[in-house]
Amino acid sequence: MSVTSQPGTQAAGPAARAAANQEAFRRMTEADPVLVDVQPAGRVIPGFEPNLILTSGPPMEWDQYFGGQRTAILGGAVFEGLARDLEEAEAKIRRGEIRLGACHDYGCVGSLTGVYTASMPVLVVDNRTGGNRAFCTVYEGPQRQRLTYGVFNEGVLDNLRRIRDVYGPALGEAVRRLGGVPLKPIMARALRMGDELHTRNNAATVLFTRELVPALLAMAAAQPDVVRELYDFLYRSEIFFLHLSMAASKAAADSAHGIAGSSVVTAMAMNCREFGIRVSGLGRQWFRGPLPPVKGKLFDGFTEDDIGYIGGESLIAETNGLGGFAQAAAFALQSYNGGTVEAMIENTLRMYQITVGEHPDFRIPYLAYRGTPTAIDAEKVVATGVTPVIDMGLAHRQGGQIGAGIMHAPLTCFEQAVAALQAAGA
Amino acid sequence: MSVTSQPGTQAAGPAARAAANQEAFRRMTEADPVLVDVQPAGRVIPGFEPNLILTSGPPMEWDQYFGGQRTAILGGAVFEGLARDLEEAEAKIRRGEIRLGACHDYGCVGSLTGVYTASMPVLVVDNRTGGNRAFCTVYEGPQRQRLTYGVFNEGVLDNLRRIRDVYGPALGEAVRRLGGVPLKPIMARALRMGDELHTRNNAATVLFTRELVPALLAMAAAQPDVVRELYDFLYRSEIFFLHLSMAASKAAADSAHGIAGSSVVTAMAMNCREFGIRVSGLGRQWFRGPLPPVKGKLFDGFTEDDIGYIGGESLIAETNGLGGFAQAAAFALQSYNGGTVEAMIENTLRMYQITVGEHPDFRIPYLAYRGTPTAIDAEKVVATGVTPVIDMGLAHRQGGQIGAGIMHAPLTCFEQAVAALQAAGA
Repeated sequence: MSVTSQPGTQAAGPAARAAANQEAFRRMTEADPVLVDVQPAGRVIPGFEPNLILTSGPPMEWDQYFGGQRTAILGGAVFEGLARDLEEAEAKIRRGEIRLGACHDYGCVGSLTGVYTASMPVLVVDNRTGGNRAFCTVYEGPQRQRLTYGVFNEGVLDNLRRIRDVYGPALGEAVRRLGGVPLKPIMARALRMGDELHTRNNAATVLFTRELVPALLAMAAAQPDVVRELYDFLYRSEIFFLHLSMAASKAAADSAHGIAGSSVVTAMAMNCREFGIRVSGLGRQWFRGPLPPVKGKLFDGFTEDDIGYIGGESLIAETNGLGGFAQAAAFALQSYNGGTVEAMIENTLRMYQITVGEHPDFRIPYLAYRGTPTAIDAEKVVATGVTPVIDMGLAHRQGGQIGAGIMHAPLTCFEQAVAALQAAGA
Repeated sequence: MSVTSQPGTQAAGPAARAAANQEAFRRMTEADPVLVDVQPAGRVIPGFEPNLILTSGPPMEWDQYFGGQRTAILGGAVFEGLARDLEEAEAKIRRGEIRLGACHDYGCVGSLTGVYTASMPVLVVDNRTGGNRAFCTVYEGPQRQRLTYGVFNEGVLDNLRRIRDVYGPALGEAVRRLGGVPLKPIMARALRMGDELHTRNNAATVLFTRELVPALLAMAAAQPDVVRELYDFLYRSEIFFLHLSMAASKAAADSAHGIAGSSVVTAMAMNCREFGIRVSGLGRQWFRGPLPPVKGKLFDGFTEDDIGYIGGESLIAETNGLGGFAQAAAFALQSYNGGTVEAMIENTLRMYQITVGEHPDFRIPYLAYRGTPTAIDAEKVVATGVTPVIDMGLAHRQGGQIGAGIMHAPLTCFEQAVAALQAAGA
């Protein structure tokens, strides 16, 4: 790969690229994400109008959304009271009365379908180092049928209402009472307790819950039922922390975005048709490619033919050196996503080839406490042909979770990004 | 090794030994330990008279105890109000007005010095499969100076009183409200979260605390301060679960004791001078040997010369296939006890050579979920020369924790036990 220096552009040549990437790495790894509140999306996310619905992935025309992702968008509109039923929701979207947006354009990340509506409570995460803010919706619970997974029915609706009316407000009160919950110490510790913070968040969830309890004890006298219900919800939701890991990773990645000349990847996201990446030095542009195949382990009764794509942005974890990049921290996952210990070690080791550095705080005990491979360099991906490995939940074509597995980001996204950097003379 | 068959004895020959050991293994691994209460030792431990003090290890004459273990015994007498000061305590022990006992003779296990007095709250653990019961004192907290570690001063005394008057009773109430807390699921899960359940109990502690919270929430209105103090104590005590792991392991090991002809080890324990083991088919006899050397990692400012022996029975964990036997589950320990990942894997693998089988519920993710090596067979130890590897906290000669490391049980104990089995014709 040759990077030609062009007179008149500010950052050019390998040395300038390396410096820009080091700065991106520094900002990403020094990020200090703190959960500061839980508030309705429409109240706290800048520019979130009442008729806005966000969804995962590089944005597309409405007609392009299908399957579970389409169902979740329409269901979100009904949940929000923007339409009486799915048909009316569709008509209003066509008429522009309900607007669609891409999560990443609003400081958000979407889990699978990634649907946000104005009244949904969102986790508000401030990066106290970078001064930026990121959001994620609240995890819906352990049941396989959820809006996240492209399912819309009475059960899903009831649960979303309980999150909006009970869990979200109580969680917000607890977090405010605590003056915020720093997430980085929890994440660093969870990596020493078998999480990779994408598919496996079990340790992080109990560590996070542990932080909340003093506030819950203080709230228990005045609102015993609400506190008991919230605690029960957290207890049942073994990967509740996933959405906190996503918001924390989004806050870290965003702080590394917008550095001239940097080839560091700051977002990877999917809609139901495409995989896309954003790169620090290339603004808001998405570099799009085909959806990659997945290899995984399906729940009983399902086959490969059942797997469908419904969008997903939880791979912000991998963007931040977690998830697939930290598989060697989470050997317990082998029974869930179908990998072997040897393959998990190999996956993590391979990611050091395509990242800027090793995370100073996120460390892997098995690798003698080596830092996680962090800050994907698109140039290194193209040079090596090694593409990011991603841990993913698997969805049914008709919605619902049916398993978990791994995928590899498509090379073409990185090739396009590198070409764009070269074309820009950066 | 030859086992000669003698007419007239009930269990003889390799087949009988194997059957007896399989039965011991079955009872040990099928044990279902449940924390059912927390009560003062004198109220709940059979035969625990008000003037009794228990301590760790094979019992010795009073004059043989020295250093931290002696200090802890005398300090326990003062804490209990059996004597005004250490001098009076000593005089009363000499006169037989204060009696000493060995923890293991009372269904108890001792952490380091292992001192029990009548008013100390103890964890009451029932084995719901075997129908037997075991006890352990309550963990004293994270400070390095504790009675457990052979230190007696005003701070230690204050803390023991708080455990007796506040933490113990509140913990007991919480446990009774919950109808007991099953420990096996917590232990199995903690092994998937980086604990080996001897030196590292971090995951088990948060999982156990998580189980208590619903009871604490219910108690919060009536006694907010007590509940807050107890929660804070549990939060600070990152290895609070150690004493539960010990009581659970004691309950499992005791249920495997007393099987005619079995060469399975059912206790390993130290006093300040000796290492000792008990064997299932050999009754209450201790087979004694020298204290083994330790290799470990010392806290800043200490040297090998500072290490002293003050007793210890937490190696009941290894007797139950945990601790050193499960090091490959707890790579995070390398930074604490000074091992390498390679050595930790090797330590666990070597223990399969001297154990009866692989635990059906306690499994190690790194070893593709192989069960932990469980039920030490004294004959296999002698035949292979491989002795049990043990994770241990390290004490200063004058008391106080100064680090952590590993040791190997002395071969002579196992040789004597095998000789005794042969002499008995078993």
